[in-house]
Amino acid sequence: MKIGVIGGGQLGRMLALAGTPLGMSFAFLDPAPDACAAALGEHIRADYGDQDHLRQLADEVDLVTFEFESVPAETVAFLSQFVPVYPSAESLRIARDRWFEKSMFRELGIPTPTFANVLSQDDLDTAVAEIGLPAVLKTRTLGYDGKGQKVLRSQADVQDAFAELGSVPCILEGFVAFTGEVSLVAVRARDGQTRFYPLVHNTHENGILRLSVPSTDHPLQTMAEDYVGRVLEKLHYVGVLAFEFFEVDGGLKANEIAPRVHNSGHWSIEGAQCSQFENHLRAVTGLPLGSTAKVGESAMLNLIGEVPAPNRIIAIDDCHLHHYGKAFKAGRKVGHATLRCADRPALERAITAVQALIEPNRS
Amino acid sequence: MKIGVIGGGQLGRMLALAGTPLGMSFAFLDPAPDACAAALGEHIRADYGDQDHLRQLADEVDLVTFEFESVPAETVAFLSQFVPVYPSAESLRIARDRWFEKSMFRELGIPTPTFANVLSQDDLDTAVAEIGLPAVLKTRTLGYDGKGQKVLRSQADVQDAFAELGSVPCILEGFVAFTGEVSLVAVRARDGQTRFYPLVHNTHENGILRLSVPSTDHPLQTMAEDYVGRVLEKLHYVGVLAFEFFEVDGGLKANEIAPRVHNSGHWSIEGAQCSQFENHLRAVTGLPLGSTAKVGESAMLNLIGEVPAPNRIIAIDDCHLHHYGKAFKAGRKVGHATLRCADRPALERAITAVQALIEPNRS
Repeated sequence: MKIGVIGGGQLGRMLALAGTPLGMSFAFLDPAPDACAAALGEHIRADYGDQDHLRQLADEVDLVTFEFESVPAETVAFLSQFVPVYPSAESLRIARDRWFEKSMFRELGIPTPTFANVLSQDDLDTAVAEIGLPAVLKTRTLGYDGKGQKVLRSQADVQDAFAELGSVPCILEGFVAFTGEVSLVAVRARDGQTRFYPLVHNTHENGILRLSVPSTDHPLQTMAEDYVGRVLEKLHYVGVLAFEFFEVDGGLKANEIAPRVHNSGHWSIEGAQCSQFENHLRAVTGLPLGSTAKVGESAMLNLIGEVPAPNRIIAIDDCHLHHYGKAFKAGRKVGHATLRCADRPALERAITAVQALIEPNRS
Repeated sequence: MKIGVIGGGQLGRMLALAGTPLGMSFAFLDPAPDACAAALGEHIRADYGDQDHLRQLADEVDLVTFEFESVPAETVAFLSQFVPVYPSAESLRIARDRWFEKSMFRELGIPTPTFANVLSQDDLDTAVAEIGLPAVLKTRTLGYDGKGQKVLRSQADVQDAFAELGSVPCILEGFVAFTGEVSLVAVRARDGQTRFYPLVHNTHENGILRLSVPSTDHPLQTMAEDYVGRVLEKLHYVGVLAFEFFEVDGGLKANEIAPRVHNSGHWSIEGAQCSQFENHLRAVTGLPLGSTAKVGESAMLNLIGEVPAPNRIIAIDDCHLHHYGKAFKAGRKVGHATLRCADRPALERAITAVQALIEPNRS
């Protein structure tokens, strides 16, 4: 079976590493000449709107999936004429737009920060009057890793904020005094079977994920599964979906969803019985899902800007290096390390050891 | 770092799957147009004696390793002029020839079945008179999966046996009434650091490995490590080496070594903290070795001739499919399944479930 992937970055690369042992082969459509997934499959180098090459991809593969949600709607619609596409066009339409996404949360009764649609500076002024400050202005689409957003603390921040984000459709979100950030990675099969990984504690810095630690018997697991399950059902979703929450007052408030394998699920390559990458492929190809149970105690640390010397990082006990094969660049995710340990104390020690290697290189 | 691999079969494929996350890339030299490792790297399609293409490989890569031991000595010597080669020419010279191999065992004080060099039918007759029947006549080189050998039970079997095996250099081995077959996979780094995986119980049928189950606290572990350590030191070995033993009277008799990653170590992809494939690459590239400790209770079952329907095999709890992407053919190893379970009873149940799927397809 040949899988087409829109995007050829590290997520595509890790999908191919998971799918090759299942007998799958891969084609990646990505305009970048150095797309790092290309080492593991065919690279169709073309823009995401290039219909000739989209058609070539559709003709070559059994189905198409995505490694990022900002794929143009026209691309998805075009491909869907020729080949099955998972997750669906509708799932992508909702997930890539914060207004649609948050409106869906509200409709499904999932708590989320107060929010308002902002299509102009006037809208923003009105929204600020309603929601109050501090608040966060975010572009409705294309934001990631803290990009495309601005924290508004005072009226001075509000002035011109809409223009500063490019005068594109935005939403304003009320500031949430959260005590933690967690995510739930879920997978839903074509037949509706659904599995959830354990809730993961995430630590961000400057909007970029740094550390993910899957939990054991988290008290909010059931609540999170309930919320995520509502979204999966609503969208008739197929594949892996990641749902990010704020922990607030012992409950959860929905932040956002990603209709794809997710950075906060990378620990699952070593730390779960079946990884998010394999489970995504199982789901989209109609295979039975694999176990999402943890194997040992694990954690994932992102390598930002550069990968420390491999001889130092893999010398750490139980450390697994994932080098994405990308050029090093400040602020860029170029790899991650997974720790899989026998118990929590060993895990804590290993986290400290990895952090000591990557802290000096922080960018 | 770019690694050259002589041979592009499933072992090369699994090396690439292990090395890509370490940031390595791969080139495979293999004459087969459908070499299954080619999906994961460059494929230099050439015969193993083709010096132009060997030179091309040497120029492109940082070092060369092997996925099989029957590489011509001239190939190794030629490559060694231009690029580091691990394991060494001397290790391959010994390991690919049963006479040299068994003579080394004897020299190192490692028990092994009685054996004699057989270069003619006359030699064979003399050897049978000394060693007795039953005995096994094996070609000194190129044997695998039970090929290139003949069991001699009576004088009638002895007659013409040398010619039947092609009138090539052979050894005669005394028959060993063994109670089990075990193997020890070891890895030695460039700096001499050595690690051993747990002893693995192997079950063969018709000379082909069917089932490998790594042990826990095997009473012969220390003895096996002692024997294997002697060989590693003697050869100044670098990389993974597999050592197969017969269990006899509560002790071990050396059968053979393989100077490479080995089928009886495939369980380590999921079942050990660091797999044999990653450890081989760590060793040959001069990186520190990874832990050989078990993760859970695991077993490996070979898929011979064909891979059962993926939807059935991966529906088995904790089952990991490794499809080699090779054409199905009777008697050919085309994949394996690894089970990684929480405990032995779960493992036993899972083994039975996989066997029920593959038994009807036995070839």
